[in-house]
Amino acid sequence: MKNLKVGIIGFGTVGTGVYKVLQNFNNIEIVKIAVKNINKKRDIENFNYNLLTDNAEEIVNNPNIDVVIEVAGGVNPALDLLKIAIKNKKHIVTANKELLAKHGSELFSLAKENKILILYEAAVAGGIPIIMPIKTILCANKITKIAAILNGTTNYILTKMGEKDLSYDVALKQAQELGYAETDPTGDVEGFDAAYKIAILATISFNKKVDINKIYREGITKITAQDIKSAKELGYRIKLIAMGQVLSDGKIDVRVHPMLVAKKHLLAKINNATNSIMLSGYPVGDLVLTGAGAGAEPTASSVVGDLLVIASELESSNNPLPQAICNHSQIANQINIGDTFNEYYIAINASNNPGVIGVIGTICGKNNINISTIMQKGINEDNTAEIVVITEVSKESDIQNALKEMLHSDCIKKIDNLLRVMN
Amino acid sequence: MKNLKVGIIGFGTVGTGVYKVLQNFNNIEIVKIAVKNINKKRDIENFNYNLLTDNAEEIVNNPNIDVVIEVAGGVNPALDLLKIAIKNKKHIVTANKELLAKHGSELFSLAKENKILILYEAAVAGGIPIIMPIKTILCANKITKIAAILNGTTNYILTKMGEKDLSYDVALKQAQELGYAETDPTGDVEGFDAAYKIAILATISFNKKVDINKIYREGITKITAQDIKSAKELGYRIKLIAMGQVLSDGKIDVRVHPMLVAKKHLLAKINNATNSIMLSGYPVGDLVLTGAGAGAEPTASSVVGDLLVIASELESSNNPLPQAICNHSQIANQINIGDTFNEYYIAINASNNPGVIGVIGTICGKNNINISTIMQKGINEDNTAEIVVITEVSKESDIQNALKEMLHSDCIKKIDNLLRVMN
Repeated sequence: MKNLKVGIIGFGTVGTGVYKVLQNFNNIEIVKIAVKNINKKRDIENFNYNLLTDNAEEIVNNPNIDVVIEVAGGVNPALDLLKIAIKNKKHIVTANKELLAKHGSELFSLAKENKILILYEAAVAGGIPIIMPIKTILCANKITKIAAILNGTTNYILTKMGEKDLSYDVALKQAQELGYAETDPTGDVEGFDAAYKIAILATISFNKKVDINKIYREGITKITAQDIKSAKELGYRIKLIAMGQVLSDGKIDVRVHPMLVAKKHLLAKINNATNSIMLSGYPVGDLVLTGAGAGAEPTASSVVGDLLVIASELESSNNPLPQAICNHSQIANQINIGDTFNEYYIAINASNNPGVIGVIGTICGKNNINISTIMQKGINEDNTAEIVVITEVSKESDIQNALKEMLHSDCIKKIDNLLRVMN
Repeated sequence: MKNLKVGIIGFGTVGTGVYKVLQNFNNIEIVKIAVKNINKKRDIENFNYNLLTDNAEEIVNNPNIDVVIEVAGGVNPALDLLKIAIKNKKHIVTANKELLAKHGSELFSLAKENKILILYEAAVAGGIPIIMPIKTILCANKITKIAAILNGTTNYILTKMGEKDLSYDVALKQAQELGYAETDPTGDVEGFDAAYKIAILATISFNKKVDINKIYREGITKITAQDIKSAKELGYRIKLIAMGQVLSDGKIDVRVHPMLVAKKHLLAKINNATNSIMLSGYPVGDLVLTGAGAGAEPTASSVVGDLLVIASELESSNNPLPQAICNHSQIANQINIGDTFNEYYIAINASNNPGVIGVIGTICGKNNINISTIMQKGINEDNTAEIVVITEVSKESDIQNALKEMLHSDCIKKIDNLLRVMN
């Protein structure tokens, strides 16, 4: 395999993991590592501090560097740095999902122009091999659906809520104490992280550019212990699902939200911080790929894997593989959440009187919604009742209209939650 | 992508599936298809019967053909045909696990000499992407363990035995009626098919040539409805597991046999004809890849995927990618089953008298075997008792000695089954 000289931008958990794994490869030389603080003590044996710089331009402009590994994250300054690197004909390996979801199109065009590769296996689902398989061995397929657990933090919180009957707040606090959630958990719990990842995955799966700004996104902060309990009684687990599908008219439906997942579904069985991707296509059928979605070592597996692929490609030819160039000229025609069709779980707080089921049934009927299950879950101290409704497949806009109508009726006090269901 | 001209050897289920999928790719032209019977009616619309020949040499010697797709199966005449094709500088895509497990070494050497590619994603686990990921994006890893369900027929039979309390014979018959098992089911139920696949998988995972003749192999024909029931009561499912591991001394342990798999293990949740591969390595950790392991369409996904990878490679360069050449100079040092360490399930038929548990315990103790559970399962009409023992990790040769000793004791009538356990 060809010898490669690399520069690393970012030296946190992932960068350090990559550094350590690269010590096993004689053909890869780390020339420079860009960090924020060159004086910080690094937890690496015999570390050569001369490798460090606090000026990343020393990497992207360094004529001795063949490949830039960007594991700093965030849009700025990564975007500008990578643009310079690409213009300087350096191949790129990145784990930066936010950057690719927001500016992938621009970067891939620039890469094509400059005949360099951008590989990013680590940007989606950590160590799980998914990007490269879709671009190589699965490329005979027309992929029509993805449903995935792409965020370990939220899956960990939801798992613990289910195992120990915890509230969201308590489960989040425990996840933070154990290092599974950040001090500011917004990026994970509000679904931003999963949305970046599904934008990237849907783009290469459907071979159409998916716009991150058109992805419907809902986090897990409104999930209650009662929702998890009701779901369990009905035979479901609650998971934050990132999904994408090609509809029969060619339009694309991409979104991130919590779902009730039937407990027999393989995704319902994915617990703690594990990630899992279910992919459906012709001719392959259904595939489920499961593994660690984050962490220094799994992420390093993908970063170094990409690097070794580049080394191999450069050994056999100076032209990068066309399949490895990700350039999607077609724009996905993404639909709004209101136009999607789903089964629904509706948790309703209502007066404890005999007419209320009739009111709910009537409003649903008027809005073309068939109810498959309706259960009263108990009476509160204020003499209101908790009612759970599971619907058959309905249009989201019909559901939203029904909920508005319900709130105008005298007997319905509050819609506690509305979740979508996957069987 | 480069235009490719291909010849197909074998036109059964898989060959026909490949033909149909290839109709969607303008850059792939099917030049010739070798079949046993050129007069047989083919279930394909507007099929051009002029494509058929009953002389496969017309394919392997055809100067117009770039790639030979071999989906006939079996060693003869495939081995001789592919050797001619390779010498004629044709790239090979094959689904033939038996051929690769038995003669892979010879074929890969010849391929290297002739600078052509042999790709074989379809030979292991049908549509699941596993060979290409191990050779590309996972190649930074030191893979140390594989545990997999690689045979759909036996998993289907075991699933039905568990769901419906069926005997092996009845479940096999139903599987045959539904087309999940062949009229002569030996290759599947005796573990040959799984052994070929694990030989291939272990060879590329551990990067050492695994000898198919040194793989311990045990099928599912001795599993009883009682075994499945006892396993369930103890919190296990029974699965035919193909496994491989690198031991701490560098020796390799590869085998195929039924196992009790703890029901929380992801492999315990794989039902019916689905395949699943669990792979453990550093730095990636544990990965589980699940999908259809057989069938025309999933297999065609892998065959055509390999073909498109060759088309891409040839577009960027005339030198095939070195990583895609599978050539293992090191021979695996494979251990015998007697030297392996496992937990065990032992089903014992014994006299119904109070001393019998003491006898079993004493014999196990003398042979360095710690018992973790011992259960009496019921009394038979002949006043013998069914006893199930679960051991802690023990050496297989110690277990075998203990079983011999038990059979010499007065109170133990028969060892009904000995199975290994995976937690």
